[in-house]
Formats: sequence, structure tokens, C-alpha cells
Amino acid sequence: MLAEIITIGEELLIGQVIDTNSAFIAQQLNKIGVSVYQITSVQDDKTHILKALKDAESNVDVIILTGGLGPTKDDITKKTIAEYFNDTLILDDSVLKNIESIWEQYVRQTLLQVNKDQALVPSKATVLMNKVGTAPGMWLEKDNKTFISLPGVPFEMKALVSNEVIPRLKDKYHCPYILHKTLLIYGLGESTLADRIEAWEDALPKHIKLAYLPSLGKMRLRLSTKGFDKQKVEEEIHQQIEKVLPLIENEFFGYEDEDGNEEVVIGNQLTKIEKTLAVAESCTGGKLAELFTANSGASKYLKGGIIAYSTQSKIDVLNVSEHLIDTYSVVSSQVAEAMAQNVLKLYKSDFAISTTGNAGPLKGDSNAEVGTVFIAIATKNSVFSKEFNFGNHRARVINKAVNKALEMLQKEIFKN
Amino acid sequence: MLAEIITIGEELLIGQVIDTNSAFIAQQLNKIGVSVYQITSVQDDKTHILKALKDAESNVDVIILTGGLGPTKDDITKKTIAEYFNDTLILDDSVLKNIESIWEQYVRQTLLQVNKDQALVPSKATVLMNKVGTAPGMWLEKDNKTFISLPGVPFEMKALVSNEVIPRLKDKYHCPYILHKTLLIYGLGESTLADRIEAWEDALPKHIKLAYLPSLGKMRLRLSTKGFDKQKVEEEIHQQIEKVLPLIENEFFGYEDEDGNEEVVIGNQLTKIEKTLAVAESCTGGKLAELFTANSGASKYLKGGIIAYSTQSKIDVLNVSEHLIDTYSVVSSQVAEAMAQNVLKLYKSDFAISTTGNAGPLKGDSNAEVGTVFIAIATKNSVFSKEFNFGNHRARVINKAVNKALEMLQKEIFKN
Repeated sequence: MLAEIITIGEELLIGQVIDTNSAFIAQQLNKIGVSVYQITSVQDDKTHILKALKDAESNVDVIILTGGLGPTKDDITKKTIAEYFNDTLILDDSVLKNIESIWEQYVRQTLLQVNKDQALVPSKATVLMNKVGTAPGMWLEKDNKTFISLPGVPFEMKALVSNEVIPRLKDKYHCPYILHKTLLIYGLGESTLADRIEAWEDALPKHIKLAYLPSLGKMRLRLSTKGFDKQKVEEEIHQQIEKVLPLIENEFFGYEDEDGNEEVVIGNQLTKIEKTLAVAESCTGGKLAELFTANSGASKYLKGGIIAYSTQSKIDVLNVSEHLIDTYSVVSSQVAEAMAQNVLKLYKSDFAISTTGNAGPLKGDSNAEVGTVFIAIATKNSVFSKEFNFGNHRARVINKAVNKALEMLQKEIFKN
Repeated sequence: MLAEIITIGEELLIGQVIDTNSAFIAQQLNKIGVSVYQITSVQDDKTHILKALKDAESNVDVIILTGGLGPTKDDITKKTIAEYFNDTLILDDSVLKNIESIWEQYVRQTLLQVNKDQALVPSKATVLMNKVGTAPGMWLEKDNKTFISLPGVPFEMKALVSNEVIPRLKDKYHCPYILHKTLLIYGLGESTLADRIEAWEDALPKHIKLAYLPSLGKMRLRLSTKGFDKQKVEEEIHQQIEKVLPLIENEFFGYEDEDGNEEVVIGNQLTKIEKTLAVAESCTGGKLAELFTANSGASKYLKGGIIAYSTQSKIDVLNVSEHLIDTYSVVSSQVAEAMAQNVLKLYKSDFAISTTGNAGPLKGDSNAEVGTVFIAIATKNSVFSKEFNFGNHRARVINKAVNKALEMLQKEIFKN
């Protein structure tokens, strides 16, 4: 069972918008045993879309298109699909009613002809009702191949995928069980890790795929396989993990959540042990807090945080002593530790983490080298900090600092 | 001049990693007059990569591949390219030296054979030296078509694109000037905007493309064109904008920066007028601060912020009175305004913005409906707030609140 995702829109091809839809769709397809063969981003251009449809039809069983379903003139997906299926567009009453009701509830302006036209669908299509927007999803079939067209607006697409596309695909196709299991590993480079586990990797059965995913400050090692016997698939991956774990005993730190990341692992653990967290961020500028709060349930463990970007705010808001800053510099272990301890007290939390550093490109209030970052962790009875140099690319420094902070925090929390 | 970007890696096709490389490459190519025809994500599979190369060669002039250049066994791009060019891999001394020097400086472990093998390149390739990593970039030519292979690690890819790929493409090809100009528009839906500017849109010359980009709480309207006479291209777009602006006088709020966004526009304006900002975030959880601090120069205007996620922290850290919270609820205009005023005082800033609301999925400390958000703006002499309901998808509520907060802030700052 193979799928291709075709995303339509000039905004993707000029780099104005990053395609996040495809990753979501791919995850959902994988969960029901459909593998994604290819993701293709094409222009809002009839010839190009027709060519992409034809190519995809020859390679895969399921073709999912997103984008180009809006009410404006640059949206041509619907017409193009009708042409591909030698079909005509007809007005769908249920879609029109849905549009009218959304209009009445949220927009409260005159319904224009272009809005009504959104209810036009190819006559051969089954409508997938879009309850959170005006562009309907469409499902068409041809020689046991399925074509699905979805709006490009992420939350509309997501609702349709979850509520319509996935249940229908599960009904139609008999799919295998796909399992990805990703190990989080800190402190080992890609080649060192590969060297360490070489014998194990070479002995892996052919149907288990291994992937190395290096990212700033951490490694992810992913095992993937599929099969129709779910229990057997899980057992097999489990056995392989049991074999590899002793080889990376000190560096392994957990599994990447199915859809999540370290911040989810940390959040779940804090919730489980009923402890709370506060953050004091200088160079990471709110990114740590934002990662936690992006997940529902963050209010169970995250008390909040202070973004003390300027030196003065470290004094005024975080109560770091001016003397300490003058003595050791604002980018120092002493200041990082004071930030963590003070934010812990301010928020009455059980754990606190702080960052202070210079992400560049210019030297700031301190004389610290660009890339120098101190990260500190405080609990009610302890505080410690570490110094890093993350090089001289601003985004990289911030991301590495965030990853390292999460790593240190995770170690500290799981220690308890 | 057309290009195709081919990104290689199973992690993209299972949705584990979002492809951000393509957007960056597309932006850079556009700046030198190269249009991206298609972006294709394929598996780490020889047959699939060979097929993608062949397809791309028949459609475009420049093919850029990213990924699959690591030292581990799942990285097969280099071997596959050699096969495509009927070529063999040879050891490149300069690359080996680069690897050794990076190893000595950052890794300080034994150089393994797999690391040395990263210095193997197709004999027909020109090496693009990767100064920040061990995987070399490669440049190959065939019948006036150019094939470029780059590592998938974003900061390595970016350095190679900026320092090697772009200058070389500029030298080799005579490209037109591509201009995208994006107008930021608030408070108009897609179809209402289209209706408003219909006559103008219909009269646009064929070579100017118009795109509507709706996103949470705002619209972007993009005009794109290209030509060999830069001045003429700019003049033409300028004339069209002059014609459309009177039609959207009250809703137009500025231009999207070439690579940036509202937060860049706001940051630049604050820097220009020498004013500062502080944020108090509850439901947006640090995202506002993070958007500002992602850009260099944020220290010029951002004093910092408070993430007051829990009710208690609004009292303890932001000094919001308990009585006010009890009287009006923690999700209220009164509390939002107090948060903005207090964070302004704490950070001694000129502007402050606050958010308080319930992003869901569950009701939190307040009884506010999921999706209810209050946003307040304070200056030294004024404070005001607005109430919104952003529906019941967590990520959407947070993003809409962030966009609306930026909109309100931008209006306030440009008023001054």
C-alpha cells in the first residue's frame, strides 16, 4: 500500500510557506499501514497538476492532494481534477448548506457567488464534508486507485484527514501494521554511534530498516518495519531494541513519542511525579516555554517563566544581583545558576532551568564569545550549570541550547 | 531558468521531520532569478533516486538534492549519483583534510574509516567545500544541466547554498530578476478581498501573478513577476500596488519582509523609533517572545517577558491582584490589561503586550470557554484590550492569538 502526497501552491515553490501538511498526512497514513512513496510540491498550473496526477497514478495506490481549493482565481485544483477524470462540476447541496451555515455563524457578510461556487464538485466525487471551512474535501476512485483532494489550510486539512480520510482508507484497504520506534541518544556523533553498533546493525533482518537522524546536540536512531501480524512486528522490534540498548547504555535517554518529542517526555514525567517547572530564558528567548506550552496538559506542570533578555531585566525581574553580574559577567555560570534559583523561588516550582548566552551575530551586553551559553538547573536543594559553545549561527545556537537544556532537564527529572 | 529540489530521506516520508530545507533553497534561488518548478521528497532508495533524477533532468535546468550524504549505511546519495553519471568515487584530498581538521577541532576522537569515506566523491564532480561539516557538497554538469548535491543538515546546507551554490549559479546562467511583493492585510476574508479587488485583478497583465494566502487571522496577497530589466519589473509592480492600495486602505498593514514576517516589521520599527517592548504571555506560552528573539537585533528593542502560565504566577510574578482575578476571572480584559501594565513597569519598557485565554482542549483555571483569549496592549499612558474567540483547536488558538497580538501591536506602534 503506497501513497503519494501532492501539495499544490506557488507559495511552497518560492519558499514563502513551509509544507507542514505533508508530514502530518504521512504520520497519519503510517498509523494505518499506508507508506508514503513520494511527496511532490507543484505549481498552481493545470499542466503541471495533470502531469503529477498521471505520474502518481502509475506509482501508488492512494493519491492525496492538498491546496488550491479556495474561492479565488488562483485556485484551480477542482477544475483540474474534473478534467483529469473527464468529469464536470456540479453543485452539491449539502456543501452549499455547510458553506451557508459557516457564513452565518462566523462571517456574517453577504454570501458571494465565489463562495457559492465552492459547493461545485466533480460529479464522480464523494464529498468529504469540511465542517471547519468552506472548501469541501473530495474522494474519487479509478481502477482501485483512490484520489483525495483536501484544502491546504492546515487545520481544515487535519480535521478532514482524521475524521474522513483515515476511516475510509481503513475500510477500503487491508493494510499492514507499520511500526517506527525512535531511540533518543545524547552525546554520540553519527559515525561513532554507527561504529559502536555496527555488528548489531549488520545482523538486522533485511525487513527492519535503520535510520540515523542527527540533529543539533542529539541523535535519533529509528527502527522501522511492517507486517500484518501486529504482535509479531512489535515483538521483533522489541527484541532488536533489547539487543542494542546495552551498547548505548549511558547515552540512551528514551523513546521519541509517537508524535512528540523530549518536551512531551519531560511533561509526561513531571505530570506523573506531580512536580512543576519554571524557566528563565535569556538567549533561548521563550522557545523552551513555547515548546512545553504547545502541548495540551502543560498547565499541569508548567508554572511559567521569565524571559530576561536584557541585562537590566535579569536584575529588575529575576532579582539577580548587580554585583554578581559585574563580577562574573552576565554570561556566566554564576548568573545562570542565580537565574534558575530565582525563577524557582518566584514561581514556587520544583524544577527550574535557565539559559544565558550570546546567540550572535554580535556581541551583546557581555563580552562572551558568540555561541557561548550557560545552562543551569535548580531544584529546591541543588543547583548546577554547564558551559557550552554552540558556534556562530544564531538559529543553531538557539536550537542547540534548547536541545541541551531539554537533555539536562530530562536527566535531572528522571534521576529523581 | 527552472530548478527542481529533490529531498532525500525516509524521515520526510514518514512525517518525522518537516522539510524546511526546500523553502530556504527556493527563496535563495528566487533571489537570483531561478524559479523552482517542483519539490520532490523521495526515499533513501537507489531506484527511486535514479528515477527522480531522470524526471528532473527532463523538466528543469538545475537539480538540487539534499540529504543522504552522512557516514552511515542508510546514506546512499553519493553512490547513486556516481551511478547516474556512470562515474566512480575517488578520494578528494582537500575534503579529507577538511574532515580531519573538523575532527581535530570539535570531535577529538579517533577518525573512523566511515568518516574518511566521506571524502570520496564522484570523479566528475566539483567539490563544494563544507566548512561546517564533514559531508562535501558536489556540483556536476551534463548537457548544460547542473546537478548539485548537498547535505541535509540545515545549517550545513544553508552555508553551502549561500557561499557556493548561489555565486556559482549566478556565474553560469543569465537569469531574470524575480520579484515577489506580499501585502499584509488584516480583517478581510479571502473571498471578500477577492470581491473587493476583482476589477483590479482582472486588469492585471498576464505576466503578473496574483496569489491569495489566507492564514490564521490575516491575509497575504502576493504579486509576482520576473524580467531581465530589474527597474522595469519593480516599476510595474509598484504601479499595480499603487492601484490596489486605495481599495484596501483600512485593512492593509504593511509588506511582508523579504524573508521575514510581522515580528521583523515590528522589530525594525521599534529599533527605528528607539522604543522597547515587553511581553506577558499566558496562553501563548512564550511564542510571542520566541518569534522576536529568533531574529538578530532583538536585544535592541526586546526587554523580555513573563510567561505567567498558572494563575498563581500571575499573582506572584506579575503582581496581578488576587482580588481582580477573583472578581473578573483570570481570563478577562481586566486581568489582561493588568498583565500588560505590570510587565511594562517590571521591564521599564515603552510598549507591552499580554495574552490570557484558554487554548484548550480542557477548561483550565478559569471557566472561560475554550478558545477565548484576551489581548491587551499597554504604553506608559494607555492600556486597552480586546476579546476574541479562536475556536477549539489548541494549536490554532495559540497561533491566532499570536497573529492577532502582532496585528494589534503593529497598529499601536505605527500609530506613534
